Amino acid sequence: MPQTPSPDLHAVVREIAEEMRARPDRGEVATYIPELARVDASAFGLVVIDADGTIAAGGDADVAFSIQSISKVFTLTLALGMVGDRLWRRVGREPSGSPFNSIVQLERERGIPRNPFINAGAIAVTDVILSGHQPREALGEILRFMQFLAEDPTIAIDEAVAASELRTGFRNVALANYMKSFGVLDNPVDFTLGVYFHHCAISMTCRQLARAGRFLVHSGRTPSTGHSVVSAERARRINAVMLTCGHYDGSGEFAYRVGLPGKSGVGGGILAVAPGRASIAVWSPGLDASGNSHLGRIALEILTRRLGWSIFGV
Amino acid sequence: MPQTPSPDLHAVVREIAEEMRARPDRGEVATYIPELARVDASAFGLVVIDADGTIAAGGDADVAFSIQSISKVFTLTLALGMVGDRLWRRVGREPSGSPFNSIVQLERERGIPRNPFINAGAIAVTDVILSGHQPREALGEILRFMQFLAEDPTIAIDEAVAASELRTGFRNVALANYMKSFGVLDNPVDFTLGVYFHHCAISMTCRQLARAGRFLVHSGRTPSTGHSVVSAERARRINAVMLTCGHYDGSGEFAYRVGLPGKSGVGGGILAVAPGRASIAVWSPGLDASGNSHLGRIALEILTRRLGWSIFGV
Amino acid sequence: MPQTPSPDLHAVVREIAEEMRARPDRGEVATYIPELARVDASAFGLVVIDADGTIAAGGDADVAFSIQSISKVFTLTLALGMVGDRLWRRVGREPSGSPFNSIVQLERERGIPRNPFINAGAIAVTDVILSGHQPREALGEILRFMQFLAEDPTIAIDEAVAASELRTGFRNVALANYMKSFGVLDNPVDFTLGVYFHHCAISMTCRQLARAGRFLVHSGRTPSTGHSVVSAERARRINAVMLTCGHYDGSGEFAYRVGLPGKSGVGGGILAVAPGRASIAVWSPGLDASGNSHLGRIALEILTRRLGWSIFGV
Amino acid sequence: MPQTPSPDLHAVVREIAEEMRARPDRGEVATYIPELARVDASAFGLVVIDADGTIAAGGDADVAFSIQSISKVFTLTLALGMVGDRLWRRVGREPSGSPFNSIVQLERERGIPRNPFINAGAIAVTDVILSGHQPREALGEILRFMQFLAEDPTIAIDEAVAASELRTGFRNVALANYMKSFGVLDNPVDFTLGVYFHHCAISMTCRQLARAGRFLVHSGRTPSTGHSVVSAERARRINAVMLTCGHYDGSGEFAYRVGLPGKSGVGGGILAVAPGRASIAVWSPGLDASGNSHLGRIALEILTRRLGWSIFGV
Repeated sequence: MPQTPSPDLHAVVREIAEEMRARPDRGEVATYIPELARVDASAFGLVVIDADGTIAAGGDADVAFSIQSISKVFTLTLALGMVGDRLWRRVGREPSGSPFNSIVQLERERGIPRNPFINAGAIAVTDVILSGHQPREALGEILRFMQFLAEDPTIAIDEAVAASELRTGFRNVALANYMKSFGVLDNPVDFTLGVYFHHCAISMTCRQLARAGRFLVHSGRTPSTGHSVVSAERARRINAVMLTCGHYDGSGEFAYRVGLPGKSGVGGGILAVAPGRASIAVWSPGLDASGNSHLGRIALEILTRRLGWSIFGV
Repeated sequence: MPQTPSPDLHAVVREIAEEMRARPDRGEVATYIPELARVDASAFGLVVIDADGTIAAGGDADVAFSIQSISKVFTLTLALGMVGDRLWRRVGREPSGSPFNSIVQLERERGIPRNPFINAGAIAVTDVILSGHQPREALGEILRFMQFLAEDPTIAIDEAVAASELRTGFRNVALANYMKSFGVLDNPVDFTLGVYFHHCAISMTCRQLARAGRFLVHSGRTPSTGHSVVSAERARRINAVMLTCGHYDGSGEFAYRVGLPGKSGVGGGILAVAPGRASIAVWSPGLDASGNSHLGRIALEILTRRLGWSIFGV
Repeated sequence: MPQTPSPDLHAVVREIAEEMRARPDRGEVATYIPELARVDASAFGLVVIDADGTIAAGGDADVAFSIQSISKVFTLTLALGMVGDRLWRRVGREPSGSPFNSIVQLERERGIPRNPFINAGAIAVTDVILSGHQPREALGEILRFMQFLAEDPTIAIDEAVAASELRTGFRNVALANYMKSFGVLDNPVDFTLGVYFHHCAISMTCRQLARAGRFLVHSGRTPSTGHSVVSAERARRINAVMLTCGHYDGSGEFAYRVGLPGKSGVGGGILAVAPGRASIAVWSPGLDASGNSHLGRIALEILTRRLGWSIFGV
Repeated sequence: MPQTPSPDLHAVVREIAEEMRARPDRGEVATYIPELARVDASAFGLVVIDADGTIAAGGDADVAFSIQSISKVFTLTLALGMVGDRLWRRVGREPSGSPFNSIVQLERERGIPRNPFINAGAIAVTDVILSGHQPREALGEILRFMQFLAEDPTIAIDEAVAASELRTGFRNVALANYMKSFGVLDNPVDFTLGVYFHHCAISMTCRQLARAGRFLVHSGRTPSTGHSVVSAERARRINAVMLTCGHYDGSGEFAYRVGLPGKSGVGGGILAVAPGRASIAVWSPGLDASGNSHLGRIALEILTRRLGWSIFGV
């Protein structure tokens, strides 16, 4: 196993972590889930795992945070594994042009969410995973999948965050019931939402998250284990959906500035994929107006520029 | 200059052209511009120019067609060259989640179009190019830019198509006047629309179009001439906008299936960019429900799969 | 008290009931609340109580039906009595231009429903009535108010209908949670919806309903008892809201054809008010595309034309 | 003919004119038509013509102002006279829930405007009047109709206002072209808009306007001349559309506060109809947020309350 670190990568990651630490502009920590508002706004972590398996880490690389919507990449992967392309009867794969929690598009399109990365779409995906099982079982399956991908059985759900959202996530309750009214959800709304709130409340460090994302870099395989998670075509397609839809109504901006498939969460994390090159996890709790990590996006922009990793050209 | 053709590429292009010729599903030829409805629905052309300058051509590679919205890639490039990032005060760069001619988003966002590749956005871009000049001059500049990029001074405007749209393009007149009412356009609406209708009416062959797109493949430079058209960063960014916004409300689908930045036109053409690898032009007049070439998209999907050219992984 | 019936009125009501019985076009019985779908589609009832207290009844005047959204007139009246014009901070009084259960407008206007007669608005009104009480108490108050107005203590809630909607009213659960997410509801969503579903499930006959509506005809007073229910100004204003908003996106049509303030319910009932002249209740279960009683509206159109009761001129 | 003035009416009108003169809150004079911005913001006029023909006038009752959208009542009347109920294939009669110049609803409903009193709807009505004629002829017909109704051949078009809107009315140009793109307009857009801008630019005094509105009060007849302008049913129906749609997205508010059918214009005028009782014209140039005369609406609210003229009850 090649463990010789690429010196450039280590240096770049360290420099970026230092630059980000020093910046005064940090965005706004999400407050809509009360438990998330308690996080330290000055935190910043960055981990890059390249094709050789080299791990470059900077800042708070080993502090766990709430992955929130980043979990949607993994539930999408799981659901595609379970039902294949039939999943696309329940959810589209077009950018929505709307905020993460918009309900307007659902009315026009009769309960079919635009893509699996807005809240409504992720709830529909969770409903597919749940199908025919108890919430506890479905949630266990999602959690074990994360542990398997990250090769780390300690990954866990932050019950305080899940409980916080269960008490206050009225908008998501609205979205789920709205889809239910169109017959788009099969399971009891409470079951589906229970699983959804809990998988969003999974806590991971940048290191764990970058590990979990490796299969998307390497044609569906996790290099360290040789496990084939999905086919190469499916990995490409998940990356494509991340590129067009991974940052809500800031997806175009992320593609324009960073040039990598990525998925953000309101906990301040972003998972980014440089196909064939690297799995990248960044975390900074302050968000921009679209609900994406402010410094996380900037750090990724600098990283891809310095390393020439944009998928849109060198 | 390397002229040894890659045998694979030639074979792949020829095979795809034959497969497409044989397919019964051809989509619907656009009728909203009467002149466009007169085209031969069975036409199919495909040209790929790879990094070595090898040109592989199949089908009706040398039949001229109306490039329509593909011209928006080139007007965006020109306008960025003229005013730089100030352009983004006039137009966004987010996918719209709406059809190409939607006016709804404009009302919500006070006349600022979502991106330069929907009609409203391209009209705003044309207004920037026009600024302070006569329509004839601005149009001349656009046409000369196309001729320069394609290294072909014979490229011309199809006046019958332009006249046809001038007579019937009420929706675009609406969009332009709507933006004007918000102060987003500087020039007389008739001037801006005159230039817009005419640059959409440029006629090109697949061969010419693939040539014109080379600078987006090679970090902003046209390899055969060595001319630097835009900076490498700008080329990447134009590609990013093509990926997220190039196919109206079918942009997510194109990214998912084809995995390349691309821009379609209602004339049935698509320009696609495989960064570092190839400039690709395809043409088949029948459109899908989103207004993108039906067989053109399928041909590109097969091409990128066979050649492993997706930007989202091998 | 004058009890001599106006012969014309009796004849007109009888004739209309017969005409309606004979018509083949009956609209579609609502199916979205399963229990409502079991009603007899051929039923038709009409009761008019004029200024003298004369009661003219035709058809199924004494068959109870689910008043559904007609209850919103009475909850609006109660809530205005409790909090006065402060109610209008929670709900608007403009026609919505949208179907009864639309959620789109709520997103644009940050959770404030357009008027108290669309579902979202009525839920907000119910939340005001509930404020600080147990659901059982609030519901008791609404029911006693109906019994008091109709002078009939036998009026009751159809628990099967309430239970049916509790099980299937996902759209209303969505609307309520959506408003809750904007802070527009004070009480637990389940409490508010419980009261809402139950007051919609009140069963009344046309005779009872026409009695209950008399205070809106006579400047806020119930003539038979002399009770002042609301001020004359408030009665006028409730009538105005009924005129502009009482029939969802068919309100303009109702005003145009019938020319009276009215409020419909998906159970097929309509309460109409001819100010100074008569309280009118009509019932026919089949609905038109806007969710209003098809024959009920036609019957009222004929009635007002024959009697010259339109508020828009003789 | 009874010419003895009702002393109360004269006193009420005079008092209201004085009260309004003294109020500091005057709304904002419209600036979107530059020529209109030049009007004196302190002007206030009020004229009431009751069923006896008594004319009570207060304030600037004889100063001409631009009637703007009030003209839509008369073009609707004319168009119904020309094509009858076929008009409703071109335009709806539901409140729109949107501002006067919204284009969003048009996209959803394929170019059919919601009602004849929003700009799009009035343009469609003008197109019906124009049908088969030269703009000059159609405009002459509209103007003669106004002169006939007001019994005053001096009523004229303010060409400076018409020219001002021709130069700046981009939003209306957008609306018209948008409808044209759906095939809703028959005539060249420039012809239809030319007539539309000119009939909106008709100048009238409150006295003239109140005279012109009398046929809507008296079942379609002008009492002084005995001319039958429309049938009684049509007069009622026009009043109904005025009530539900006459004040854009302030229509509900006007019904709630004033309780009369009415139509406002951005010139600050309002024509209100108390069926069977009085024709009322008020003018004060300052507008509220919905584009309706601020003091005009308040004056009418006081007037109907003092005289007990609300159609919703005494």
